[in-house]
This record gives sequence, C-alpha cells and structure tokens, in this order.
Amino acid sequence: MKKVIIGVMGPGDGASNYDQENAYKLGQLIAQQGWILLTGGRKVGVMESAMQGAKSVGGLTIGILPDRDHKQMSEAVDIPIFTDLGNARNNINVLSADVVIACGMGLGTASEIALALKNGKRVVLLTDNQEGIKFFTSLAENSISVTNSSQEAINVVKSILAHVQVG
Amino acid sequence: MKKVIIGVMGPGDGASNYDQENAYKLGQLIAQQGWILLTGGRKVGVMESAMQGAKSVGGLTIGILPDRDHKQMSEAVDIPIFTDLGNARNNINVLSADVVIACGMGLGTASEIALALKNGKRVVLLTDNQEGIKFFTSLAENSISVTNSSQEAINVVKSILAHVQVG
Amino acid sequence: MKKVIIGVMGPGDGASNYDQENAYKLGQLIAQQGWILLTGGRKVGVMESAMQGAKSVGGLTIGILPDRDHKQMSEAVDIPIFTDLGNARNNINVLSADVVIACGMGLGTASEIALALKNGKRVVLLTDNQEGIKFFTSLAENSISVTNSSQEAINVVKSILAHVQVG
Amino acid sequence: MKKVIIGVMGPGDGASNYDQENAYKLGQLIAQQGWILLTGGRKVGVMESAMQGAKSVGGLTIGILPDRDHKQMSEAVDIPIFTDLGNARNNINVLSADVVIACGMGLGTASEIALALKNGKRVVLLTDNQEGIKFFTSLAENSISVTNSSQEAINVVKSILAHVQVG
Repeated sequence: MKKVIIGVMGPGDGASNYDQENAYKLGQLIAQQGWILLTGGRKVGVMESAMQGAKSVGGLTIGILPDRDHKQMSEAVDIPIFTDLGNARNNINVLSADVVIACGMGLGTASEIALALKNGKRVVLLTDNQEGIKFFTSLAENSISVTNSSQEAINVVKSILAHVQVG
Repeated sequence: MKKVIIGVMGPGDGASNYDQENAYKLGQLIAQQGWILLTGGRKVGVMESAMQGAKSVGGLTIGILPDRDHKQMSEAVDIPIFTDLGNARNNINVLSADVVIACGMGLGTASEIALALKNGKRVVLLTDNQEGIKFFTSLAENSISVTNSSQEAINVVKSILAHVQVG
Repeated sequence: MKKVIIGVMGPGDGASNYDQENAYKLGQLIAQQGWILLTGGRKVGVMESAMQGAKSVGGLTIGILPDRDHKQMSEAVDIPIFTDLGNARNNINVLSADVVIACGMGLGTASEIALALKNGKRVVLLTDNQEGIKFFTSLAENSISVTNSSQEAINVVKSILAHVQVG
Repeated sequence: MKKVIIGVMGPGDGASNYDQENAYKLGQLIAQQGWILLTGGRKVGVMESAMQGAKSVGGLTIGILPDRDHKQMSEAVDIPIFTDLGNARNNINVLSADVVIACGMGLGTASEIALALKNGKRVVLLTDNQEGIKFFTSLAENSISVTNSSQEAINVVKSILAHVQVG
C-alpha cells in the first residue's frame, strides 16, 4: 500500500548554512512523522542534509539521481533510483512526492517548483529568497504556502495531506 | 553540418495576445535569418504562433512534443520529435536550442528558463512579467538579456551567436 | 545506506499463468531474503504477481510507473515512482535494479533485457521462450543466466550479489 | 507540414563492414526519396555511415543524441536533438520515425526494435543476425519485414508509407 512520500528540493553546491540547517531539521521531522523522504539523492547541499536528518532518527530515504551510478550518491540514500536523465529527472522528483517542500532557492530548485506547480502539486516554500517567493506566488498563489521554519513547513504538509488524496 | 537552432518557449493556453504577436514576429525573424525554429510543438499559444510566423516566410520548424503522437501537434511543425516524456521534455527543448528566447511567462516557461540557465544556456527574455524578470536576473544575471521587442530579441541572439560556439 | 534492490521484469497483459506463478514466487523469495522488489508498478501481469508475492510475506515494493498518476498502479506498490516517461522508463527500471530477473517474455521485457545488458547489468532469465534465450545469449553470453525455476533464479541472484558491488 | 522521417538504427562500435555499407546506402536512398534521415546521432558505426550516405547526396539528417553536448556527435548531423537521457533516448528515436529500419544488430538496436514494436511501429530488418530475426518475428510477425538489401528495405518502407498515416 502506497506510503506517504514527501519531497525536499533545494540547492546542491549553492546551499547556504541556513538552507542546510532547515533541510536537516525537515529530514528529521519527516522521518518522525513516519513519512518517506524523497530528494535528488546527491551528496551535497540540501539533498545531503535532509537525508542525514532523516537517517539520524531512523527514517527511510529515496534518492532520485540524475546519474546512472552511485558516484555522486549520498551515503544517506536507502533507495536510489538511477535515472540517467540529467536535469530531466527533476520532473520525476516532483511527480513522485505527495507534497514538495522547496528548501532554499537556485536554478534547479526553481525548475522543480515550476514543474511541481505545472503538475498540480502543492509546494511549500522555506526560503529567504524574496524574489522567488513573489514570482511563484504571482504564478500559482493557491498552490503555494510560504513558511518560515521547518516545523511550520511540516505543519502545512500535515494539513495538506489531510485534504488531498495521497497517490 | 549542424545548423543554427533557436528555441522559442512560452505559454500554451495562458498566452496573451501580446505574447502571441511577439511569438509570430520572432518566428518570422528567425526564419529570415536562416535559422531553424524549435518549440514545444503543440498547436496552442506561443508555440503555435512562433511556428506559424516561421512558416509564413518559408522557415523550417522543429517541435519537441511531450506526447507520443500527433494529436496535439501544430500543423506548422515540419519535424516533430515525439518524446512521450511529458514535462520532462522541457529539458530537451533547452538543450537542443543554441539560444533560448522566453516569450511570455508561465509555469512551463519558468521551468524552461530555469533548466536553460542550469544547463549553461543564454536566455533572452521578452515578457512583461516583472516578477519573473527580477527573479531570474537575481539568479543568473550574466546569462540573461531582457528585451522589449521581437526585433531587439533577435539582435541579442545575433550578438550571442557571434561569441558562442554553436553546438 | 543503500539497500539491495532486485528487479523483476515481465509481460503485463500478455503474461501466461506460468509467468505469473513464477513471478509471485519470485516476489516472495526476494522479500524473504530481505531484498527490496522493484517492478514496473502496474496492476497487471508479472508486475502485479511479483508485488503481491512480496507483500504476502511482508516485503517492501517499488513500482517505477510509466504514468504520472496512480490510475494504473498496483495496490501492492509501497513506493511508487511516477516517471511520466512512457516506455522510456524501462531504462530506469534496469539501472535501479542491482540484478534484473526477466520472468516471461514480451516486447517490453525484451527492451528491458537489452537495456539492462547494454548498461552492464547481469540478467537472469526465467522463461520458456527459447528464441529469446538463444537471441540474448548470442548477444551477451557472459552476462546472462538461464534458469528453470524461481528458486534457481534466486540462487543465481545470491551468487551474483556475492561478487558484484551493490550500487 | 510534417515531413517524412525514416529512422535507421544499428550498432555503434560493434557495427560490421556489411552493416556500415548497408547503412551508407540506406542513407543515400532515404535522402534521394526526399525523406529526412533520423539516427542516434553519434559519430560511429551505423549512425555515422547512414548520415554520411545521406549527406553525400544532399539529404537532411536528424541525430537524437544520448548526450547533452556535441562531443560524440557526428559531423554529418544537421539537426542535433540533445536529450541527455542516455539509453532512454532510444524510445524517442523510434517514436519520432515513421518507419524504423534496423540495420545490423546489437543490444542498443535490440532495445530499439523492441520499443518500436511495443509502440506500434513497423520495423524493417536488414541484418544477418538469424537469432534476432527469429526472435522478433516470433514476437510481432505482422509488424516486421525481413529484407536482404538496402534497396529492398527502401522498397518496403515505400509500401508501408503508402498505407499508413505519417505522423
């Protein structure tokens, strides 16, 4: 039976300390809810921090990798999906997550937010990038929730899950 | 020998008259330069208008379709590439264009701009969406050119082509 | 830390009773080894039978779906990956499995065997299709193991896992 | 308006002289019919030979590359589509060709034949691989034509095009 899968998307090399701290906490909170964490699977930035957080409390992690092998894979990935699709894998990330949390901002993250909204997914923003908040809110106000902490983001995810069909 | 291929990306159903007029003119100007026009190939919005423009002056058009058949294909497509990839095909659009012109704004267009910049492509913006201009400029100032008319966009493309290797 | 993931690929609508019985047993044996089962995720044929087998003994299942939603998804999928890639998702199936078991034969299965071998994966055949056995053995003799029962297939997988790096 | 696009698929590094001579001739004959040639776009084997043949008589060539750049691209490609999809791009090759000619045999080619047939495409075989002929004929007899020369393959394509809708 399908499990709840929550995606955390965010910058790799460009992640700030603020983003990585938020990501680690998000990973912990997601795992503590009994949800599965899904990320882009690479051993850098928000992906790595979120998965380390999830593993620190015994969670299960899925990494949707752009590559065909494990060279860039985080050791915190339990279930790697090797797509060999490059950035085209971003669409799989968002389709496979019941809710997408964007933690931080960058070009890859922006593509994931846009693809998530295009695919009808709800997106929770946790970022200090004001231009991004304004831009995506102007495009899809009803599908976006702006939050200021990992705990607030998780609370919003809970309330979304209570109202949408998982799957 | 590889030909010059210019991508025009923009909204489908959500395209405004302003966007569609710009797209038609862009298609004409691209064809008149002897360049090949590449779009998302569907018979709606900026894609349709740009390809109709190119065909009105005898240009050649490529449509990178999200589908596996011609049901949603514009009749102005000469060379359809049927990807059956859904929105993941957006990454192919931008990788296959030597320069990407974003004409108008929407969720799909935003994903294409983000993916183009992520892949190191130059992007020319022709849109009245100020939030989008501010956001993408903040992420990749050196790879973005903001323009106000189809002719200005083509002039920028010419100057980019003079300095980058096509292919 | 990466878990062992074993792929079972086989026909959907065209699966014979023999194939489905083998698939169910394979699913059980894979789960009993503590391995994760990966299939194409649809509620038909070998995919469905293998996942039902795994769930009957409490296993964990991943379904790599060609679609963007759960309409064709088996209820025995725990972790659905929605690719929206159509048949292009077959490449992800084989890249994400540590070893591929082909249970039965058909066009989709043939593409997966070919792609698995092309990507350097070991493939275990469990099928009565003699033309297929001859053909694939002629192309990649050293990467193919022909077996005659689910238990024999699992024994071969065990011996492969003892000699190759998982991941 | 959609042009006729004929795909020639075949081995890269593993192509025999026989395959490459057939491919060169196929490229010439396709171009002389006014059809566009579509291949996998790499500068090796059947892909390279077919495109060189097409260019020798002034044809137009499309290369659907597995890569994101031109490093492995044949110089005989006019229109490169950079997919960055690895072997998953094989599905695009066959979906975008009105008819697929398999010239020679190998693992990649086998995956393309299987995917073409799975997608309902007609496949023309020009190969001395008897196991492959037997196998694919057993799976999809009505969609396969076995030929013994480039000219015969083109004659079959002509007769297929006379009876199926292009697109």
